[in-house]
Amino acid sequence: MVAKIITLTTDFGLKDPYVGEMKAAIVSICPDAVIVDITHEVKKFNVRMGAFMLACAAPYFPKGTIHVAVVDPGVGVEKRPLIILTSQGIFVGPDNGVLVLAAQKQDIIEARIITNPKLMLTDVSNTFHGRDVFAPAAAKLATGVPPNSFGPEVREAIKPDFAKVTFDHGFLMGEVLHVDGFGNIITNIDAKHLGQLHATGLISVNLPRFAGVLKRGKAYAEADLKEALVLMGSQGYVEIAVNQGSAARKFRAKPGDSITLSAV
Amino acid sequence: MVAKIITLTTDFGLKDPYVGEMKAAIVSICPDAVIVDITHEVKKFNVRMGAFMLACAAPYFPKGTIHVAVVDPGVGVEKRPLIILTSQGIFVGPDNGVLVLAAQKQDIIEARIITNPKLMLTDVSNTFHGRDVFAPAAAKLATGVPPNSFGPEVREAIKPDFAKVTFDHGFLMGEVLHVDGFGNIITNIDAKHLGQLHATGLISVNLPRFAGVLKRGKAYAEADLKEALVLMGSQGYVEIAVNQGSAARKFRAKPGDSITLSAV
Amino acid sequence: MVAKIITLTTDFGLKDPYVGEMKAAIVSICPDAVIVDITHEVKKFNVRMGAFMLACAAPYFPKGTIHVAVVDPGVGVEKRPLIILTSQGIFVGPDNGVLVLAAQKQDIIEARIITNPKLMLTDVSNTFHGRDVFAPAAAKLATGVPPNSFGPEVREAIKPDFAKVTFDHGFLMGEVLHVDGFGNIITNIDAKHLGQLHATGLISVNLPRFAGVLKRGKAYAEADLKEALVLMGSQGYVEIAVNQGSAARKFRAKPGDSITLSAV
Repeated sequence: MVAKIITLTTDFGLKDPYVGEMKAAIVSICPDAVIVDITHEVKKFNVRMGAFMLACAAPYFPKGTIHVAVVDPGVGVEKRPLIILTSQGIFVGPDNGVLVLAAQKQDIIEARIITNPKLMLTDVSNTFHGRDVFAPAAAKLATGVPPNSFGPEVREAIKPDFAKVTFDHGFLMGEVLHVDGFGNIITNIDAKHLGQLHATGLISVNLPRFAGVLKRGKAYAEADLKEALVLMGSQGYVEIAVNQGSAARKFRAKPGDSITLSAV
Repeated sequence: MVAKIITLTTDFGLKDPYVGEMKAAIVSICPDAVIVDITHEVKKFNVRMGAFMLACAAPYFPKGTIHVAVVDPGVGVEKRPLIILTSQGIFVGPDNGVLVLAAQKQDIIEARIITNPKLMLTDVSNTFHGRDVFAPAAAKLATGVPPNSFGPEVREAIKPDFAKVTFDHGFLMGEVLHVDGFGNIITNIDAKHLGQLHATGLISVNLPRFAGVLKRGKAYAEADLKEALVLMGSQGYVEIAVNQGSAARKFRAKPGDSITLSAV
Repeated sequence: MVAKIITLTTDFGLKDPYVGEMKAAIVSICPDAVIVDITHEVKKFNVRMGAFMLACAAPYFPKGTIHVAVVDPGVGVEKRPLIILTSQGIFVGPDNGVLVLAAQKQDIIEARIITNPKLMLTDVSNTFHGRDVFAPAAAKLATGVPPNSFGPEVREAIKPDFAKVTFDHGFLMGEVLHVDGFGNIITNIDAKHLGQLHATGLISVNLPRFAGVLKRGKAYAEADLKEALVLMGSQGYVEIAVNQGSAARKFRAKPGDSITLSAV
């Protein structure tokens, strides 16, 4: 038996019945789906944040998992509900970049626009494609409907515009992707980038509202209580953290900030 | 195999172990139940809001679903734990109106008071019937215990007192049911009501702290960025919304506000 | 068929993908696990609060349930990921006290340190043992891997330092364990302790910022609206509550406050 795992990533929050309605649509079509919430607390309309969340979590799911992501400021107007089939799974959501960051970490096989009304809810609203289009598509895929039943293939999917990491004259420049609930500053600089610096025990950090030298460590608790450090985080990116405190508050950093690292 | 879907709607929040304890009671009795959260962020003691949430989500669940709703200011004192059997499913919760709005959208077959102690947890607390009475009842129903085992039939269930929508001299009057996490103002005016207005491109809107003419649209993104519009929302009711902004903040509207619509 | 129930209690919050990644690790190993969230809103790094949440909820789960609790300020540095096997279930988490309060309510059979790398994810991060060590351990246990495969037995597990309840010259002294989402003040004084007071209709309550006599009741709604009362709460402890209001706000109480009760 192959598990029918469907993940959900949205900006719907948990106060409203919207996530419950998406799950209703799924269990109506595929009652034995295993539904796993990644998060529903993506900042409203923040496609980049949704893309980041999905890209962090997707690699930990087993082969064949179907990922639904709905952060959709243009719902009902911009017309490309998308399915992306990869070597590892299937991604379902609007074609605004929210899927691609995660999908391109895997081998993309094909992408299709969802146009077949038989694979949507009977009455599709103009404002809630999460429930009426994307959740039913995921559930149909989970029951074995092949991706090519949903609509025509497309060649290009929109990509979210994260800054590229650059390395120039010893300065590694990237951006702050996310501030997590612990206040950890997560950047888009990965281990390979960081290796270019040949930084050892100390590392120079520049943020819009902070410049200074921080210790490099492996675990939060290697720093003294409330002391900052630089480490490779669990999401695969360089983090600036404070042991049992908030680095984002200490350094007044927020997503989108530029960050520069250099060896000391 | 019939899926044993149990939904939960409460005002318990997610910080405390209460929702987990309800689920513990369910899986102890019916380990293969599929539990779906509608929301646990109903405003504390706000029976009308709970009733609205459940009524929005229930129609999307498959036939046979068991819905538990617990918003229960009178727990342990007012004595009518209720089961309502409809043509589509079963509703379980206190007899204070939280169930009826959803149940009466379906054909009500019968209602029963839960009095049989054998179908509750062994030690029933006076303060947490969600865990001790309602969750076990739902789980027992999921395992096939018939509704008539729970207690005597009742004729009347308490109904929540939402304002009726009236249409008079060209003015359609209703109320604000809910402000969702996006700031959309959801009213109790449905498509049939709105049809009476014969409003076309523009619609006149009166709220306690706003009066003006708004565009009528189908999708949020039909309005300019941060512009307001009136549309039929995904929950089946007229919404006042702002494209990628909060209508509730813009018009300082809140649940319970009266709203009047008229053609221009 | 024995249900493979795995519960999760963390301080990760629901905004980040961390809880989703833990569930990914679980379903990758044991796709038919039934995962139940107790709470992910434990105050960051507050081991005592996590211990309390788990101890409240664990008794309601069926025999054989596997409980994972991760509140782990010392992750990656302090080296004792723990498994505690009891007569009722299995507890998995860091050896900092978060498991023991719940485990010692049951008969503890043995405790083991997790040292076997074959039972962890391939690349164990230094910052996220919830995903890389504890979730996989729980999932492996759910698939039938015996506790003794994980590592050596240990004799002593760290215990959280809750104040002991004392009874002296008619004064019952304890502490505030938790303020719940309703504002109920939950103490560590249980029914047996309270029996020593022989208090009947009224009870004298001393908190750091309140001293007065309150009514004793059984259900919140026995008090007048917004009136305070003392009752045995659903978690098995004495609570100070306000009918449809917040006792914590009224009496400016918070976790860790001392509380003294006496008969009037």
